[in-house]
Amino acid sequence: MKPLNVAILGVTGAVGQELLELLEERRFPIASLKALASAKSAGSKIKFRGQPITIEEAREDSFEGIDLVLSSAGGSISKKLVPHAVKAGALVVDNTSAFRMEPDVPLVVPEINPEDIRRHKGVIANPNCSTIIMLVPLFPLHKIARLKRVIVSTYQSASGAGAKAMLELENQAREVLEGKEPTKQVFPHQIAFNLFSHNSEMDEATGFCDEEKKMVQETRKIFHDPSIEVLPTTVRVPVYRAHSESIYAEFEKPLSVDEVRRALAGAEGVKLIDDRKNNYFPMPIEASGKDEILAGRIRVNDKRPQEVCLFVSGDQIRKGAALNAVQIAEIWARTASSVNV
Amino acid sequence: MKPLNVAILGVTGAVGQELLELLEERRFPIASLKALASAKSAGSKIKFRGQPITIEEAREDSFEGIDLVLSSAGGSISKKLVPHAVKAGALVVDNTSAFRMEPDVPLVVPEINPEDIRRHKGVIANPNCSTIIMLVPLFPLHKIARLKRVIVSTYQSASGAGAKAMLELENQAREVLEGKEPTKQVFPHQIAFNLFSHNSEMDEATGFCDEEKKMVQETRKIFHDPSIEVLPTTVRVPVYRAHSESIYAEFEKPLSVDEVRRALAGAEGVKLIDDRKNNYFPMPIEASGKDEILAGRIRVNDKRPQEVCLFVSGDQIRKGAALNAVQIAEIWARTASSVNV
Repeated sequence: MKPLNVAILGVTGAVGQELLELLEERRFPIASLKALASAKSAGSKIKFRGQPITIEEAREDSFEGIDLVLSSAGGSISKKLVPHAVKAGALVVDNTSAFRMEPDVPLVVPEINPEDIRRHKGVIANPNCSTIIMLVPLFPLHKIARLKRVIVSTYQSASGAGAKAMLELENQAREVLEGKEPTKQVFPHQIAFNLFSHNSEMDEATGFCDEEKKMVQETRKIFHDPSIEVLPTTVRVPVYRAHSESIYAEFEKPLSVDEVRRALAGAEGVKLIDDRKNNYFPMPIEASGKDEILAGRIRVNDKRPQEVCLFVSGDQIRKGAALNAVQIAEIWARTASSVNV
Repeated sequence: MKPLNVAILGVTGAVGQELLELLEERRFPIASLKALASAKSAGSKIKFRGQPITIEEAREDSFEGIDLVLSSAGGSISKKLVPHAVKAGALVVDNTSAFRMEPDVPLVVPEINPEDIRRHKGVIANPNCSTIIMLVPLFPLHKIARLKRVIVSTYQSASGAGAKAMLELENQAREVLEGKEPTKQVFPHQIAFNLFSHNSEMDEATGFCDEEKKMVQETRKIFHDPSIEVLPTTVRVPVYRAHSESIYAEFEKPLSVDEVRRALAGAEGVKLIDDRKNNYFPMPIEASGKDEILAGRIRVNDKRPQEVCLFVSGDQIRKGAALNAVQIAEIWARTASSVNV
């Protein structure tokens, strides 16, 4: 595989930092690495493979000679800069919601729809973290029983709102323990020792927030089935970096607990944790830093065995964002070098 | 209303302490108060209405002359002592799971089935906290549309496992912030900055835990409808004392968001918090210390308007336990004094 000229857009964020780590850890074939961020970070240095790299300001002309852009600087920056990267000839794996629902842009979870990568026209979108964490364990069941509908309640970590939000959880916890009033800067409500409805924009007409709409629309696009019904309730909880989800899934065909267990145990990207005897199931502290989505707490409705309950936890920064993007880039790079180059 | 000779069984626990506060706050008609606990607390003193009361060891002969026992010392102690209290002529409001499902024992949420109080034969059971917090806001909707099924995921506070569990959350949070390994004594898993499947006994055959079974069985008993289906997933979260629940409810008749809002706004024991514009909905820190169950985040499935989603938060120690018990006792005392005495 030919080494590539890679740019990370948004290198100073929580996902940007994880992208750096993953490229190093997974020995991604890199000829040169460009670290792009906002003007205020330009000039400071990051380390990659032991070498210092100076952060440059991300601008429209930053992408000359770049083969691959891993972009996670936020939706408005993606909207502005990604077209320039594409024009300069780069493939962009975009981690924001900017292009996800555009018909021309593949929305990919490598364990589910890697074949969609080929249809790209310069941009491949990385799904929302809650969608990825829900769909990776549902896909092996979808393959054998066909998913019809999901009712899901999330337990989402602070990391979904970035590195500053994780720090806010830490600082607020300290303040509460010291008997002080917690300082709110990132989240609209206290996050330490509390929980609240997800802080994304709320559709006043339907009562569903953006995070929930993403789970609905992205599921249909990734599974190529606009008839799948998703009814999500997204909630922030005082956890640092892994999202958990309580999933009720209705399939076309009945399933048994054993079938579900076998399907999850053999599924790519999933680690089965389903120990009833010891009441040991997926937990966010154990999902943190892991590549796999932990899945378990399997229960099948005894009256209607096409209904299955699961509890899952996945690292929001890793598989929910950076890892999924790097996996997409890896498949693209293999395909590109074998087919086109 | 004739002042009563009252005993609190389990006075040193989190619920026992709350019972004391509530009897004082609500000016419950008390002639004498007996404070009962285990032998190791006997001899120490508590304060009630400014007066010191010496804690006595709870024994089979502790109930002579007692009119009312508020019992929350745990299931095995209730099983042992409650029959003696009944034999001594007292009415027992029992806050444990010991007698809840016995056909002779009314299981009462005063906002829902106060009429069941009359059927008592010496014991009235207080439902499980998660059941109460779920049913108080569902009842006004049940009255107008008839509940058929609930899929519910809980966000349960440490207080459900008692005062020691709340302290464990606090201590672990401190340890994690100091970079130390958190000390586990009450909960099987780390609770600070983590969450896990509810730590009640797990039925290895079905995969449902005791907490979940209670929500299923108690709902049917309180609503007098064995056909209601409840599919719960119960989860502990790092919150001190209020439980939250993400509820999907299916009714026989369709409902609109406005109908649900009106029904909740006018319902006894419920405070409607449903501000889509400001993304402001029920939160456990705001439910703590309150008598009402906060209910909101109302959404109706646009394709099947008999399906309604809610998010609720309720003080687990207060309405989830002590307040509900005192409310039962108040109704019983009024009825007893007007009808029998």
